[in-house]
Amino acid sequence: MRKVLTIGGGTGNFVVLRGLKHFDLDLSAVVSMTDNGGSTGILRDELGVLPPGDVRQCLVALSSSSKLMRDLMNYRFEVGGLQGHNFGNLLLSSLEKITGSFEKAIEEVGKILNINGKVIPVTTNKTHLKMLLKDGELLNGEREISISKNIWNGFTSLYLDPTPKANPQVIKEIIISDMIVFSPGGLYTSLIPNLLVTGVTEALKKTKAKKVFVANLVNKNTQTPGFKVGDYLKEIENYIGEDIWDYVIVNRGKPSEKLVKTYAEEASLVENDLDEERVLQEDIINKELKKVQKGDLLNRNLIRHDSDKLAKVLMRILDNFYKQK
Amino acid sequence: MRKVLTIGGGTGNFVVLRGLKHFDLDLSAVVSMTDNGGSTGILRDELGVLPPGDVRQCLVALSSSSKLMRDLMNYRFEVGGLQGHNFGNLLLSSLEKITGSFEKAIEEVGKILNINGKVIPVTTNKTHLKMLLKDGELLNGEREISISKNIWNGFTSLYLDPTPKANPQVIKEIIISDMIVFSPGGLYTSLIPNLLVTGVTEALKKTKAKKVFVANLVNKNTQTPGFKVGDYLKEIENYIGEDIWDYVIVNRGKPSEKLVKTYAEEASLVENDLDEERVLQEDIINKELKKVQKGDLLNRNLIRHDSDKLAKVLMRILDNFYKQK
Repeated sequence: MRKVLTIGGGTGNFVVLRGLKHFDLDLSAVVSMTDNGGSTGILRDELGVLPPGDVRQCLVALSSSSKLMRDLMNYRFEVGGLQGHNFGNLLLSSLEKITGSFEKAIEEVGKILNINGKVIPVTTNKTHLKMLLKDGELLNGEREISISKNIWNGFTSLYLDPTPKANPQVIKEIIISDMIVFSPGGLYTSLIPNLLVTGVTEALKKTKAKKVFVANLVNKNTQTPGFKVGDYLKEIENYIGEDIWDYVIVNRGKPSEKLVKTYAEEASLVENDLDEERVLQEDIINKELKKVQKGDLLNRNLIRHDSDKLAKVLMRILDNFYKQK
Repeated sequence: MRKVLTIGGGTGNFVVLRGLKHFDLDLSAVVSMTDNGGSTGILRDELGVLPPGDVRQCLVALSSSSKLMRDLMNYRFEVGGLQGHNFGNLLLSSLEKITGSFEKAIEEVGKILNINGKVIPVTTNKTHLKMLLKDGELLNGEREISISKNIWNGFTSLYLDPTPKANPQVIKEIIISDMIVFSPGGLYTSLIPNLLVTGVTEALKKTKAKKVFVANLVNKNTQTPGFKVGDYLKEIENYIGEDIWDYVIVNRGKPSEKLVKTYAEEASLVENDLDEERVLQEDIINKELKKVQKGDLLNRNLIRHDSDKLAKVLMRILDNFYKQK
């Protein structure tokens, strides 16, 4: 069975995994460990646990249990002292407190949700994402970085404090995978945080796996205003030290004008500026209108990937790769 | 397979079920729905759910899942905004909110915990236990009733507000059971609240099941100071209208002097004042010293039943009953 590894944050990994899980694959997801917003942030502060939110999304993506169990994992308390807390996060954090191990907690929730695959935190060291801006301001944590407009004036460094070591399992999985997919997500908040973990970039350069970059559909205007696909690749190359991508998947499907307008203030479509053979321009956009969930951030992911379309493109790459061999 | 039904609150049903579950029985637990203390009380107030705490204890008692899953159900958050909340309660309440049905929530948790038996709320109507004292004071809820010393001066009525109807499944189970066990527990807070639900006493008088009363080991000095076994039976008869008990199980094992002294301010041993054939005097006390759990009320249940010893006595009754037939 072919081994496919996705790397990213919660939402992007979810999109990739949800499509891939319908194929006969050995799936693993490597998840960044720097989320500090919402329910996850409170649990980190109060209980001293590792961030559960992104891991939870991956577990749900890989789950073959009932819709009710998946709804339960995503259930958010709407009132009272529990307001904003997410049930799945509480489950992961409770198990981490009881067992003393976040990985054991993930394993147990994986059993409850009957998951097909593995979810692996990129590190099990506690760490925080920091961004030092050119004007001297220090942004503390993913949450601040994701909303500050001051990034527009440039930053001098993005780092993890303290510098964590990669989970040994992550290194092993990177090396033995047949294909590695960089899931879409915030460049500075979901993607690069994985590369800042000691050992990850070395493994990515060493592995013989085919490496696929899935370009974002939209730029967050606070984080990557006007970025084109090439800008993403260049910025990531700065952290890896090489351009490692065998394939770059870019969307050519058009979202509705109305949706683009609704979105305009916070986000813009990512344009493709690359004309290379490895760039696959595909219609991988989701045309269905997503219902905005209670408690969700306004307009989040209104323009988003279609998991099944994306999975088909990824499977085509995988099939081609093994035919060539 | 013989059908055995236990009736009571969380702690007492737990003690009876934990022993009986090792036998080849069709087990059901009927649980009072008036708990309003701690985590359960907060969830009732804030989310408008039915009280999960006692049901959770019964589910854990019937579970054949791993120790970790049972520890998870009993896990209590110790710090921060979640302090005092119990994970299993949050699970039941989240599922109730999602499905709109407490019974569906119990069914789902039963699956997760791989339970052998059924846990049935005595009613699914929302109701509160009230006690009107002779001096005119009205005690609101199980929690107030369980701690007020003013009960010593007598009360004029104990009632549920509003008066709930029995869960139809409870009536059915009472009628078709082979044996019904009244679990130990607070007389006014765990036992009689089941009898105040419309339909329950009628069914108890109608059923052909053997009916067994398991006497408490200790009296809570706030609630039943100096009560003897006969006082319990008389008080319960006031609510049922008949003495329905085929058997009364009384402990003859002695707890350590030290334990009795430690306990003396809040509780005293229940003496047996009955000399009747139906009264079985058995050594059913637990001799192991229980570790006091973090967050647990001081000294709660230090003197307690031994589940396995109690189950053996109950099984003897059941076997005798069917030999006679």
